[in-house]
Amino acid sequence: MEGNLPTATEGQPLRCKAAICRQPGSPLSIEEIIVAPPLPREARIRVICTTLCHTDLTFWNLQVSPENSPRILGHEAVGVVESVGEDVTEVTKGDVVIPIFLPDCGECIDCKSSKSNLCSKFPFEFSPWMPRDGTSRFKNLKGEIIHHFLCISSFSEYTVVDIAYLTKIDPTIPPNMACLLSCGVSVGVGAASITASVEPGSTVAVFGLGSIGLAVAEGARLCGATKIIGVDVNPEKYEIGKKFGLTDFVHAGESEDKSVSQIIIEMTGGGADYCFECAGKASLMEEAYASCRKGWGKTIVLGMDKPSKLSLSCSELLVSGKSLKGCLFGGLKPKSHVPILVKRYMDKELNLDEFVTHELQFQDINKAFDLLIEGNSLRCVIWMDKVML
Amino acid sequence: MEGNLPTATEGQPLRCKAAICRQPGSPLSIEEIIVAPPLPREARIRVICTTLCHTDLTFWNLQVSPENSPRILGHEAVGVVESVGEDVTEVTKGDVVIPIFLPDCGECIDCKSSKSNLCSKFPFEFSPWMPRDGTSRFKNLKGEIIHHFLCISSFSEYTVVDIAYLTKIDPTIPPNMACLLSCGVSVGVGAASITASVEPGSTVAVFGLGSIGLAVAEGARLCGATKIIGVDVNPEKYEIGKKFGLTDFVHAGESEDKSVSQIIIEMTGGGADYCFECAGKASLMEEAYASCRKGWGKTIVLGMDKPSKLSLSCSELLVSGKSLKGCLFGGLKPKSHVPILVKRYMDKELNLDEFVTHELQFQDINKAFDLLIEGNSLRCVIWMDKVML
Repeated sequence: MEGNLPTATEGQPLRCKAAICRQPGSPLSIEEIIVAPPLPREARIRVICTTLCHTDLTFWNLQVSPENSPRILGHEAVGVVESVGEDVTEVTKGDVVIPIFLPDCGECIDCKSSKSNLCSKFPFEFSPWMPRDGTSRFKNLKGEIIHHFLCISSFSEYTVVDIAYLTKIDPTIPPNMACLLSCGVSVGVGAASITASVEPGSTVAVFGLGSIGLAVAEGARLCGATKIIGVDVNPEKYEIGKKFGLTDFVHAGESEDKSVSQIIIEMTGGGADYCFECAGKASLMEEAYASCRKGWGKTIVLGMDKPSKLSLSCSELLVSGKSLKGCLFGGLKPKSHVPILVKRYMDKELNLDEFVTHELQFQDINKAFDLLIEGNSLRCVIWMDKVML
Repeated sequence: MEGNLPTATEGQPLRCKAAICRQPGSPLSIEEIIVAPPLPREARIRVICTTLCHTDLTFWNLQVSPENSPRILGHEAVGVVESVGEDVTEVTKGDVVIPIFLPDCGECIDCKSSKSNLCSKFPFEFSPWMPRDGTSRFKNLKGEIIHHFLCISSFSEYTVVDIAYLTKIDPTIPPNMACLLSCGVSVGVGAASITASVEPGSTVAVFGLGSIGLAVAEGARLCGATKIIGVDVNPEKYEIGKKFGLTDFVHAGESEDKSVSQIIIEMTGGGADYCFECAGKASLMEEAYASCRKGWGKTIVLGMDKPSKLSLSCSELLVSGKSLKGCLFGGLKPKSHVPILVKRYMDKELNLDEFVTHELQFQDINKAFDLLIEGNSLRCVIWMDKVML
C-alpha cells in the first residue's frame, strides 16, 4: 500500500485519494484530489484512520446548497502531522494528533475560562471552508473546488486542519483507539464527567444507546454511578451496554400503559439523578426531563439531529427544581481534556476497545455507511493505509 | 385595639377576625371565624403582620372549584406561637415564627439533602386543607367550613400552621421586616445566592422588577455581581431598583428594532452570566434564556403565573452550552436559610426596609390589593393589631 501513496513534500501541493460526497445519500466517490500546503496556523495531516460518526450520516443525507458541494465528510480521526504552516509551534512534523471539530484557540475568553468550551474566536458553525481565511485547501485534478466539513474532512488520505482544531496526543496509543476520542466517545464520557459531574453512587438514565449513549454510560461508570439505566427501542442494546457499565434497561415503546419516565421514576424511587439525551429528538428530551429527580435532577442534552423545538411546562419547570443543559463535545476542552482520556485508556480505566465493532480499508468506506444505517456497528474504523488481512 | 382581641385559650377553639375570599376578584370580607386548636405537629399562631404577595393576587383572581371556597388567602407573614399541638418540640408558646409555604419536614431524603428544598413528605400543592390530616381548622360562626391556602392563610388574626411550615426566628427583628422573608424577598435573594450561586464580578439580568425581581437584584448585589441589569416595561422601576443594586436598565418594549436579548448581549459583551425570570411568562423565559452567555450562562426561572409552555430550539440548547433551572422559594431550605437572612438584615447587610412602601391596618386589607394592582406598592405591610397613627 505504501508504494501507492504520493510522496509528501512540505510546502507543495500533494496528490492523494479522498472519498467525496457529491449527492446527498449516494455512495461517496473515491477520487484523486490535490491538497494545498498549510497556510499560517494550519497543519497538513496524514490521516491514519478515521471513523464514521452519526453526524456524518446526518449531513451525508442532508440536501446541501450548491456552495457546500462537493465536500469531504468525516471528522473523527487520528493522524500524523506531515507539515505545518507559518507560526505553528504547538505541533511539528511527525506528531500524532487528533482533529476535533470544536476549536480550542487558547486565546479567547472562553478558551481561557474553565467554565466554557465554546471558543469565541472560531464560533461553532457548519462552514464549508477553512476557519481562518474562508477558503478551501482541496481541489480535484480538474481544478474543481472541494469543500471542507466541520473544519476536519477526514475521509481523505491527507487533510489540512487549523491548529485550533488539533490536539497532540501520546503517540503510543493505538490509532484505532485514539480516533474514537476525536468525537463520539469523548462527547459521551465528557457529558457524564464534565458537563454533569456525575457523583459516585448516583443514578443515571441514558436515552439512545448509540456510541455516544454508550460512552455516557462508560463515563458514568468511571464517575462511580451505581445504577446506569439504558433506554433504547432496540432490546439488543442491553447486552452491548453492559460492557460499558449499563446496569438496567428500559425497552422504549414496549410498555403500552406506562411511559418511559414512569418506568424510570419507579426504578429509581423518584427519578434519575442525571438523564442524558443522546439522539437529538425533542420528544426524547422531554421524556428525559420528566425522568429526572425533582430537587436536583439534571438533564443533559448532547444529541444532534434535525431542527426541532423542545416544549416544557413553565410550572413544572418551576416546581420541579430540575435543570436542563446542553453541551457540545460533552463540555470537554479539547486540548486539555482529550489527552487525559488518552491516559485513562492507556491506564486501562477507560474502555475503548468495545466500541470498535468493525474495521475496513478506505476503499470500502461506503460499507461503513451501510453498517451504521443498519444499526450493526458502533464504530467502524476505516484505515487509510493498512494491509487488511 | 388589644381590647377587641379574643382571649386565646390553649386547647380551645378561638374566635377572631379573618379576611375571607368568597368570590374571585371581589373584595375580601372581614368576618368572625372560629380557629380550632392545633392538632399534633401543628401550632396556632397569632399573626403580627402579613403582606400581600403577587401569588395571593393571582389566586384571588382565579376561578376556584367550590371545594376550595370560601378560603383565607395570605402566605407572607410573621407571628407568635399562641399554642402548640401534641408532639411539637421545635417551637413553644411565645416563639416568633415565620410561616413558609414550602415545607421543611426535616425527615425526608430531600429535607436531609443539601441539594434539594422540595420536601417529599409534604409535596408542594395548592391544597385547601391542612397537610397532615386533610381537614380545615377554620369555620365561621354558622359552622361553614373555611378553607386554607398554601397551608398558611395569614389573612387572619389567628391561623393554624403545620410545624413543617414554620421557621423560628430571632424575635428582635422588627415584624414588618421579618414578614418579608416569609416569601417574596427570600425567593429573590435565594434564587441569586443559592440556586444560581452568583459569583463576584459577574453580570446579571433580572426580568420583571416586582418585589421578587428586586430581591434578586439585592441578592446579586450581596453576592458581589458588578453589573445588574433590570428589565421592565415600567421605566420608573430603574430608580427603585438602584436601591437594590441595579446598575443598568432595559425598558422592555421601547426599542422597535432590537429585542431585549440583543440589547443585553450588547451591554454585556456576549450575554449575562445569570438571567432571572421573575414574572412566570413563557415568552420572558425564552428572552431570558436568549440573553444569557453561551458556554456558562444560567437562566433561573422563579416567576409563577398562569399555565403556559416554554419553547426552546433543540440545536440552540445543544450548541449554546447554557443551562436552565427552575426553583421554588429561591432554592432556600426554609429552616436553615431563612434565619441566616434574618441575621444578614440585623447585621445591616441585607436591605429589607426599602421593600416596604405601604403599611395598613387589617381592616383596610382590600386597599393593599388596589395598591398592588395599580403597581404602586412593592410590599404593603398589613398589621393585625397595631394602632396606626
